Amino acid sequence: MTDADIRLAHLLADAAGAAIRPFFRARFDIETKPDASPVTQADQAAERAIRAVLAEHAPQDGIIGEEYGRVREDADRVWVLDPIDGTRAFIAGRPIFGTLIALLEQGRPVLGVIDQPISGERWVGAHGRPTTLNDVPVTTRSCPAIANALLATTSPWLFDGPGGAAFDRVRAAVRDTALGGDCYNYALLAAGHGDVIVEQGLQLYDFAALVPVVEGAGGVMRDWSGNPLDANSNGQVIAVGDPSLLDPVLTLINA
Amino acid sequence: MTDADIRLAHLLADAAGAAIRPFFRARFDIETKPDASPVTQADQAAERAIRAVLAEHAPQDGIIGEEYGRVREDADRVWVLDPIDGTRAFIAGRPIFGTLIALLEQGRPVLGVIDQPISGERWVGAHGRPTTLNDVPVTTRSCPAIANALLATTSPWLFDGPGGAAFDRVRAAVRDTALGGDCYNYALLAAGHGDVIVEQGLQLYDFAALVPVVEGAGGVMRDWSGNPLDANSNGQVIAVGDPSLLDPVLTLINA
Repeated sequence: MTDADIRLAHLLADAAGAAIRPFFRARFDIETKPDASPVTQADQAAERAIRAVLAEHAPQDGIIGEEYGRVREDADRVWVLDPIDGTRAFIAGRPIFGTLIALLEQGRPVLGVIDQPISGERWVGAHGRPTTLNDVPVTTRSCPAIANALLATTSPWLFDGPGGAAFDRVRAAVRDTALGGDCYNYALLAAGHGDVIVEQGLQLYDFAALVPVVEGAGGVMRDWSGNPLDANSNGQVIAVGDPSLLDPVLTLINA
Repeated sequence: MTDADIRLAHLLADAAGAAIRPFFRARFDIETKPDASPVTQADQAAERAIRAVLAEHAPQDGIIGEEYGRVREDADRVWVLDPIDGTRAFIAGRPIFGTLIALLEQGRPVLGVIDQPISGERWVGAHGRPTTLNDVPVTTRSCPAIANALLATTSPWLFDGPGGAAFDRVRAAVRDTALGGDCYNYALLAAGHGDVIVEQGLQLYDFAALVPVVEGAGGVMRDWSGNPLDANSNGQVIAVGDPSLLDPVLTLINA
């Protein structure tokens, strides 16, 4: 992962944002995917725009995208794309969805972008470098006591069935819980405005870009067993801003 | 309700926004109220700022505010204030909370402002006039079939206990459901980006400003029995963008 990769990631986010903005709060077609999640023309146009830039600048790299599947997924370098994370928020006209772009090297996320094309906020995380929001470094905040922590999760319905009791134990231990938010929760945690996120059922394209952003800001992301997240993770995700919260959250989840 | 009242409502929203913006994504104290909801220095500063303007321009009017209680609440004209609706979103750094300002005449909301001081969006609804977003008229959208409707609600936890089955019937009948959002859901519905909102447990200051905004855009707000909302409503609220959705939603809620 080089400076050129970071520059390319900016180009990809620029292309996605330009494709998305004309659809925001406009009329567009909505389809329902087999997993019951919605997809719009904007999701599709944005992923096509990103893939066009990749075809020009990194034709040898692999791609795993939410809308258009996998090519060269066994390549050493794989770009992982979620053109609109938070499609429900996008459809509802809320400016808190995001474009997620990650670069995996040997299956591990080393570069991540969370881009909000309406508010003009772009978080960039790159392994070994400080995470930035619009080019200014950001850091997570201190929160040594879980009783003072603010928890966020996109939906409690992620926890219908298995995982529900684990989530409820974390919710009972923290100060308060905010719903909704999708990738924007992780971006805000990286900038010091949240403490804990617990989710499950995520796909690789939902979490790959988040890891470098959160960890480059001083936070930690793990699966529910405490392992680092990679291309083989099962979609159960924890993010903490203060690394000292990781152990208490893992203990609650696995109690 | 006169043009002067509308001008005063703008002044009140200006004052609240000026008080709130310095706290957004900054460090501030958070307290927990008896009902377990959070309150910050920003909520308090904003309501004080609004009350200072009212003391100068409308000293005879009553005031009902979330943070500082009731004065002259039996006056013919009563201003109803929620300085930050969506305090959890505000605390989390999300720009989708809002300042709510309503004017009641004889207990009925005749003027409402939903102001988002970070994005600079202001919805104004006044009885008998078209609702505006930043001075441009907006309207709700057509959605004759509930199966195509997008439902929003701030939290499914509003429906723990009584009301849960009613909400679940509506959720099962619509196309999709978005969580989070608070007053911003009603503002977006008024601008044609949502179809149905069902909530309960709201206070007068949570819903009074929403009614003129939604109804001036062509939508309808009612309680769960189908009655218009006023100072005596019980906090169970329905909003529909397309008036033809009111009957099917009421039928589902009361099945």
